[in-house]
Amino acid sequence: MDQITTLALDQDFVAAQNAPLTAALDDDYAALGRALDRRGIDIEAITKAVSAFAVAAPTWAVGSGGTRFARFPMAGEPRDIFDKLEDCAVVNALAGATPTISPHFPWDETSDLPALKELAASLGLGFDAVNSNTFQDHPNDPRHPLSYKYGSLSHTDPAVRAQAIEHNLRCAEIGEALGSKALTVWIGDGANFPGQQHFGRAFDRYIESVQAIYAGMPETFRLFLEHKMYEPAFYATVIQDWGSSLLAAQAVGDRCLCLVDLGHHAANVNIEMIVARLVHARKLAGFHFNDSKYGDDDLDAGAIDPYRLFLVFNELVDAEQRRTPGFQPSYMLDQSHNVTDPIESLMTSAVEVQRAYAQALLVDRTALDEFQTANDPLMASQTLKRAYTTDVQPILAMARNRKGAAIDPVAAYRASGYRAAVARIRPVKTGGSGGIV
Amino acid sequence: MDQITTLALDQDFVAAQNAPLTAALDDDYAALGRALDRRGIDIEAITKAVSAFAVAAPTWAVGSGGTRFARFPMAGEPRDIFDKLEDCAVVNALAGATPTISPHFPWDETSDLPALKELAASLGLGFDAVNSNTFQDHPNDPRHPLSYKYGSLSHTDPAVRAQAIEHNLRCAEIGEALGSKALTVWIGDGANFPGQQHFGRAFDRYIESVQAIYAGMPETFRLFLEHKMYEPAFYATVIQDWGSSLLAAQAVGDRCLCLVDLGHHAANVNIEMIVARLVHARKLAGFHFNDSKYGDDDLDAGAIDPYRLFLVFNELVDAEQRRTPGFQPSYMLDQSHNVTDPIESLMTSAVEVQRAYAQALLVDRTALDEFQTANDPLMASQTLKRAYTTDVQPILAMARNRKGAAIDPVAAYRASGYRAAVARIRPVKTGGSGGIV
Amino acid sequence: MDQITTLALDQDFVAAQNAPLTAALDDDYAALGRALDRRGIDIEAITKAVSAFAVAAPTWAVGSGGTRFARFPMAGEPRDIFDKLEDCAVVNALAGATPTISPHFPWDETSDLPALKELAASLGLGFDAVNSNTFQDHPNDPRHPLSYKYGSLSHTDPAVRAQAIEHNLRCAEIGEALGSKALTVWIGDGANFPGQQHFGRAFDRYIESVQAIYAGMPETFRLFLEHKMYEPAFYATVIQDWGSSLLAAQAVGDRCLCLVDLGHHAANVNIEMIVARLVHARKLAGFHFNDSKYGDDDLDAGAIDPYRLFLVFNELVDAEQRRTPGFQPSYMLDQSHNVTDPIESLMTSAVEVQRAYAQALLVDRTALDEFQTANDPLMASQTLKRAYTTDVQPILAMARNRKGAAIDPVAAYRASGYRAAVARIRPVKTGGSGGIV
Amino acid sequence: MDQITTLALDQDFVAAQNAPLTAALDDDYAALGRALDRRGIDIEAITKAVSAFAVAAPTWAVGSGGTRFARFPMAGEPRDIFDKLEDCAVVNALAGATPTISPHFPWDETSDLPALKELAASLGLGFDAVNSNTFQDHPNDPRHPLSYKYGSLSHTDPAVRAQAIEHNLRCAEIGEALGSKALTVWIGDGANFPGQQHFGRAFDRYIESVQAIYAGMPETFRLFLEHKMYEPAFYATVIQDWGSSLLAAQAVGDRCLCLVDLGHHAANVNIEMIVARLVHARKLAGFHFNDSKYGDDDLDAGAIDPYRLFLVFNELVDAEQRRTPGFQPSYMLDQSHNVTDPIESLMTSAVEVQRAYAQALLVDRTALDEFQTANDPLMASQTLKRAYTTDVQPILAMARNRKGAAIDPVAAYRASGYRAAVARIRPVKTGGSGGIV
Repeated sequence: MDQITTLALDQDFVAAQNAPLTAALDDDYAALGRALDRRGIDIEAITKAVSAFAVAAPTWAVGSGGTRFARFPMAGEPRDIFDKLEDCAVVNALAGATPTISPHFPWDETSDLPALKELAASLGLGFDAVNSNTFQDHPNDPRHPLSYKYGSLSHTDPAVRAQAIEHNLRCAEIGEALGSKALTVWIGDGANFPGQQHFGRAFDRYIESVQAIYAGMPETFRLFLEHKMYEPAFYATVIQDWGSSLLAAQAVGDRCLCLVDLGHHAANVNIEMIVARLVHARKLAGFHFNDSKYGDDDLDAGAIDPYRLFLVFNELVDAEQRRTPGFQPSYMLDQSHNVTDPIESLMTSAVEVQRAYAQALLVDRTALDEFQTANDPLMASQTLKRAYTTDVQPILAMARNRKGAAIDPVAAYRASGYRAAVARIRPVKTGGSGGIV
Repeated sequence: MDQITTLALDQDFVAAQNAPLTAALDDDYAALGRALDRRGIDIEAITKAVSAFAVAAPTWAVGSGGTRFARFPMAGEPRDIFDKLEDCAVVNALAGATPTISPHFPWDETSDLPALKELAASLGLGFDAVNSNTFQDHPNDPRHPLSYKYGSLSHTDPAVRAQAIEHNLRCAEIGEALGSKALTVWIGDGANFPGQQHFGRAFDRYIESVQAIYAGMPETFRLFLEHKMYEPAFYATVIQDWGSSLLAAQAVGDRCLCLVDLGHHAANVNIEMIVARLVHARKLAGFHFNDSKYGDDDLDAGAIDPYRLFLVFNELVDAEQRRTPGFQPSYMLDQSHNVTDPIESLMTSAVEVQRAYAQALLVDRTALDEFQTANDPLMASQTLKRAYTTDVQPILAMARNRKGAAIDPVAAYRASGYRAAVARIRPVKTGGSGGIV
Repeated sequence: MDQITTLALDQDFVAAQNAPLTAALDDDYAALGRALDRRGIDIEAITKAVSAFAVAAPTWAVGSGGTRFARFPMAGEPRDIFDKLEDCAVVNALAGATPTISPHFPWDETSDLPALKELAASLGLGFDAVNSNTFQDHPNDPRHPLSYKYGSLSHTDPAVRAQAIEHNLRCAEIGEALGSKALTVWIGDGANFPGQQHFGRAFDRYIESVQAIYAGMPETFRLFLEHKMYEPAFYATVIQDWGSSLLAAQAVGDRCLCLVDLGHHAANVNIEMIVARLVHARKLAGFHFNDSKYGDDDLDAGAIDPYRLFLVFNELVDAEQRRTPGFQPSYMLDQSHNVTDPIESLMTSAVEVQRAYAQALLVDRTALDEFQTANDPLMASQTLKRAYTTDVQPILAMARNRKGAAIDPVAAYRASGYRAAVARIRPVKTGGSGGIV
Repeated sequence: MDQITTLALDQDFVAAQNAPLTAALDDDYAALGRALDRRGIDIEAITKAVSAFAVAAPTWAVGSGGTRFARFPMAGEPRDIFDKLEDCAVVNALAGATPTISPHFPWDETSDLPALKELAASLGLGFDAVNSNTFQDHPNDPRHPLSYKYGSLSHTDPAVRAQAIEHNLRCAEIGEALGSKALTVWIGDGANFPGQQHFGRAFDRYIESVQAIYAGMPETFRLFLEHKMYEPAFYATVIQDWGSSLLAAQAVGDRCLCLVDLGHHAANVNIEMIVARLVHARKLAGFHFNDSKYGDDDLDAGAIDPYRLFLVFNELVDAEQRRTPGFQPSYMLDQSHNVTDPIESLMTSAVEVQRAYAQALLVDRTALDEFQTANDPLMASQTLKRAYTTDVQPILAMARNRKGAAIDPVAAYRASGYRAAVARIRPVKTGGSGGIV
């Protein structure tokens, strides 16, 4: 590991990039401030809240993603967790919204945890929820001698279940060492054929396994269960929806919560309503943000349906402002960057999530409540729309500028020459997904 | 009310219709018996189980249904609950599978409950779950002075909620008088616009209302909550899926259960898995059977995806044979007959439901369990398929023949001239749905 | 018919409503002008284009809509085409975007066409495409003695087809008298059951019927074929998608084109791509605008997925600016207002359509083209997003203000007291859709 | 390549496996014959037609498939096209329904085409449509120096398009050498972001490229265009549906046709209707058979919705029996076998396709036509259902038995020990898809 020196992490470089943009930003910000003031909103309060908003970056998303058909590598992909940290540092330095990272094991295994912590600290990064991987085999890892082809936590063979439980406990242990406070469990267990799996027994086995993880992980940890409708299993998935996730979390314990990935639902499902239900049940763990048009497309947050993202944040801000007990959601990006530079996608996606949060903060909740109570759907709808159609770009840019991040993160990133620089020291990485033969 | 005399209810007529068909049936039944015997299955046990199987007929389904665009009336539609009873009696006489009916109030209101009970008894019909209607206004009913335009059990106005609760209690009371043991609550409450409804508060109000119904209904009653993804509300529905139904049922009490209508789910959802989850949670109320290709199409059971219907019954037979505690589902048809004679559709649909049940009984569950345990998905899948592809027609026909119903219900019905007979005494009924002006 | 006098149509009243809002509007407009100028965009050119943009209002949408379950009437619903015209005049007066109306026959039949034309002229309204109705029976209209229960233009009975053709020709004839230039044909023909209809033969009959309409209508007319995936037919629809619409239009003639209703597609379908394909095939008739989350929900345009609406307009502006030969789409709203005041919904929906158009005009197409050519998906995507997230509210409001419409149409409408005024002279109208008995 | 000797290809072994099953088969077959005879159907004619029915096996499907998350290899996977041929030979020997194979290039490249032809001939196998692969990069193939990351036939760079065209022409050339008569073109070209691609220009480039392939391929060849809604592109796909496929095929020529893959459609789409429309347009190329519940799941044919498969064959038999001009569809399986032994899945899938064909042959088309003409949807539907619920297992098994294939293909295959035998000489093959890092 050679820690690189890059303009992207150089405050002076960023300041220089920002300089020619500040006059226009000041004008836009002032105009928006006047307009919001007329609506009774203090722009500075919004800017402050936006500035404090953070979403974790997932380590796996800084490499090029792929589909089952192909993965097209790009230059300079990270070789290991240390490289990934550097990429994540650039994302945070320029977009100013991702101060923590979410690692995945065994992908991010290192024999030198102290070095990892040290590098993270030097880059100003912390560790969010850790993720376990029992949806793949790890043929080179002696801790995984048994295959997960037919499941992990719900496998019919108790030895496979024990192996998967053990891996999750190890992930929590590593997480604790890194300062993380949560473990996210997503499994691929399920069936490709009617009859392949006994639904009830598989669910029982899953719950029993999760109970064992819950019992064994640090008491300070929260356990996040992530449901998904389908893929990799194409007929049935053990934790297929929020209902199953809820049943399991109820069976496990108070710190066992339900994580919502925006792409893991059936077509047309009202996701913001699921958010509200999990808030109601006090079981909302948090989010994996991304966007999708068809299935679990893992596209950039807000790329396809930005209003849906806003409506999710509308629920979150509502819960926050109502001071819902126990409401403390975790925010992470979870995307697959197949055709873009992952660093650019992570920066713009973090900004999109912030944008939705900022818009949701603009909702006039007193008026909304009155329209709801009076059954005035048109004005209730318009109240949300007025917040949503407000261009909050000046707020987002000002928040970045004030904290030393880039007014235009992508332009600054491109100007920094970071990708070319790492491409010179990191070899091209072929393989990974793709290749159905 | 003039109770009609019809060949359709005449045992001799039915026997005469069956006579020319019995030789072929005997041959088919014997051949199937030998084939099943080679698979270790006693055909007589299956026939006996099929014969005992029953599904309730809904009173509202004997009239022609419609869409929001149009309703095309047919000749001889029933004028009131007494006419409906007669039609249901024909369905049961010829298909032999619907000994109970499920009434809907205030549609089926009568000032003479004793006469209703008497007619039902004389026709050999009993009463299944009663259904309340607070998704429509009832301008001519003084018990419903307030409008349900903006909801009923979850309405923002406590007076509307009280009116809707009162109506449900009245339905339970009528149901008790008729010998029913359950109340099914389906509401249209929801929103057409983002912002129209506060999800959390609407859900709280719903739960509070259902708790009041639960507290006020007879202690012998079970309360069935029916969820639906959308329609009539097109953005959000208060009880939109089985997760919300479960949360509500958990908040209400042990006899509050979750009803599954096969057409009320998002596209591609694995319904048999939801059935398994509700069995697991001991919250399965039962079913509204129908089939659908797009939304809540309310087509005839098994008309579009008969394998899905079989897979649902595969779960039910599994739960039954594992003697799952508290497993006692209620079976009802719930269809909209827009282009067929409703009596014909109800007969053939009841037979389709029986068919799925019979096929599910043929599953070799010992072998299936072994294939599941051994992770042999191909043979597990083939085990279900072998049961499903078996032609159980001879079993279904023999069960009907033995109990005096028709071997060919539709042919016997047409031969009876019933429709023409009732058309002479029942005037054509225009109106109802349709007409979007 | 008594033509009403209303503040809503009084220019002085509107001007008085606008007065207190102009200072803020001027400030917002100037600030936006500066911001756009920095992006090389002349705000006045955009405002001018927006001001010239128009979308037709459908006469059927000024009454309360309903579902198959219920229709909840509102006060002051129009009694006939004359009342509808007045409501449409209010929509146009206040929102300034719907100078034409699209009538539906026989719903809008009148024995006094000259009076209708005269009223329209006096209200400043013109006539857009006429719509035929053969998806309902018209029992009181002697021109429709045969039922459409089993289809119209594709019916197996040639007499029904002839009746439906005749009705379409009559609609075109009325349309010509009113100054319309197009006939829109949407039929409900299809099947609820596999086997009910022979797909090939039904399609042949449909094409033959449409050819007859095409041959008989005025030579100045264009014929719009409207496809729909499902509803009222729930298994198969004769013109189920744009592919079938295209095949039929190709078989009929050059002035036979394919109309796109935003709610008539399968889940997740990329509608803007269909628009591009129809532009490519020179077969795009135009649009029925609305929004939807599940099926053909007919919600207010832009209420659910405003970015999708923008992406549709992105294609339209692209086609316009490339001067695609024959590109001349017709724009209409087609919505069902079940829970709002239809006048308010039509005004805000027209504004939403304008908003999408204005945003699409802001797209930097030179930059976009370069990013597309260079395979820079991130910047291409950001280019669209930058246009979309711009708050064009000042442009829309300024365009209205300058033409004497309301800066805040809903507030002005409510202040005018129009609904209460018409409620006093128009009786409540029950019935219509709803009532599945 | 060492051609293996296996019991699976030994006629005597198969005959011995069949021996104990023939008595039961004879009894079942005779009983079914009597039952069909009562319905006016000659069982021998059906058995003969089934025996002549064939579907091509795809070479890529004899290896274990995977998802983007993981691929779990199985023992004895084929190393090259010669191994694949042997596996395909076993499939055909035991199930008796796949006498041809469909190869994929460059996956199946060999420097010794004559040896390939010779082996195929010795195994009794022929070659069906050849498939080109420009959805992956082929870094080790000097013919593909340029990347397909941003498309192939529709790429913005003419050099990439030329490379992709060249590859397709080469595939056709190889195909001609092998005796194939068609080239299937499926590309992954599309976009992951709104704005990434100009829809119209990309479509133009695609058509131009396909025209070049059409012009350059042998005149005896047919060119099959395969559309797909999404994946690997998750926002837009150049040939996204049958409408775009049709437009392109129309622009190319008479021998350019539209291929239907059952898993490439939007949710709930009526696929059998698309089949009917392509028959009508004389543009139906044929099929890629598989089954799916969610997206392009590539599950075994008939595994999820066997009635849908039957309804597709109902259209095909109808077109066949009406002697539709030019109707000559190609049948291929296209599945991903992630959790089963691919040989077992291919055998049972071929049988499922045959089953649907056999059931469709049993439809009483004279009666069906009468019910359709008379608008008797219930009886029309029952007519299809009666054919579908008939257990045609004895017919399928008898057809196999008579041609020397296995009555129970999976049992015979397992008894042959083939998998263990090849596992001894073929090393485990890791990699391929999976691994999203």
